[in-house]
Amino acid sequence: MRILGIDPGYATIGFGLIEAVHGRTQMLNYGAISTPPGIPFARRLEILYDDMTVLLKETQPEAVSIEQLFFGNNITTGIDVAHGRGVILLAVQKAGIPIFEYTPMQVKQSVVGYGKATKLQVMDMTKRLLHLQAVPRPDDAADALALALCHARSATSMLSRLGK
Amino acid sequence: MRILGIDPGYATIGFGLIEAVHGRTQMLNYGAISTPPGIPFARRLEILYDDMTVLLKETQPEAVSIEQLFFGNNITTGIDVAHGRGVILLAVQKAGIPIFEYTPMQVKQSVVGYGKATKLQVMDMTKRLLHLQAVPRPDDAADALALALCHARSATSMLSRLGK
Repeated sequence: MRILGIDPGYATIGFGLIEAVHGRTQMLNYGAISTPPGIPFARRLEILYDDMTVLLKETQPEAVSIEQLFFGNNITTGIDVAHGRGVILLAVQKAGIPIFEYTPMQVKQSVVGYGKATKLQVMDMTKRLLHLQAVPRPDDAADALALALCHARSATSMLSRLGK
Repeated sequence: MRILGIDPGYATIGFGLIEAVHGRTQMLNYGAISTPPGIPFARRLEILYDDMTVLLKETQPEAVSIEQLFFGNNITTGIDVAHGRGVILLAVQKAGIPIFEYTPMQVKQSVVGYGKATKLQVMDMTKRLLHLQAVPRPDDAADALALALCHARSATSMLSRLGK
């Protein structure tokens, strides 16, 4: 199964594409969509939507795994990120691809095995599980690969539980 | 100038269309877009986007006036509203219509003349300024008309300041 992980935002949006077959995972592609500062916010959302639509068409994922938002601290940034995430969800929905959402804690639990793992631990395990030479850059892309892995491992464990 | 006011959201999205000519304002249309509960959130965003695109095509506004989000209290609802607002901004941007944003305080100041006016005062003044028989329902539509009025009055005062 081809899974596209997405780390949502409005300025830098990480993505990571993996192939998951019988519990084995392979990295296919990763990177980030960027929208330039200094232009109207609605125009940035349009660039994000258009680029995301192209990315989905090029990568042809069978599932999208995207982070659920939770804001304790910076609510002003959070509102802007949620605008971007709305536009991303719209693009995925328009492409007809199933959407799965995971909290940061679920990603940590799934990738590291510990819900309170540090960001560095998640990145290191992402690198190992995908047999990469180094932690992918930017961080947003590494986060996106971790999200894709999280879904692969959730789907795998679900199939295990179903005895398949 | 035809101005479409929009009260953003993801469940009920108010709209109000007015015509503003030489400081005189007239109500042309108002109502609300609704998205049904109990379906995936991304599907609700898609319905919102599609309905908003149709509304913009049918009403042909020259300007859109939309509320700026500010959340002190319910941040969880706020995140969902911001997702919806992102999708609305995208639809307006795609339609090529200029977007103007106002805070609730700016709307109160512009419509009632007092930045701390109550919701009831804003609704009553909206009714008077647009020569309506009653306050429009739902509240979201009344809020949207107030936003349209706010932009009309801001644009008017700006033209006055420019001596036009």
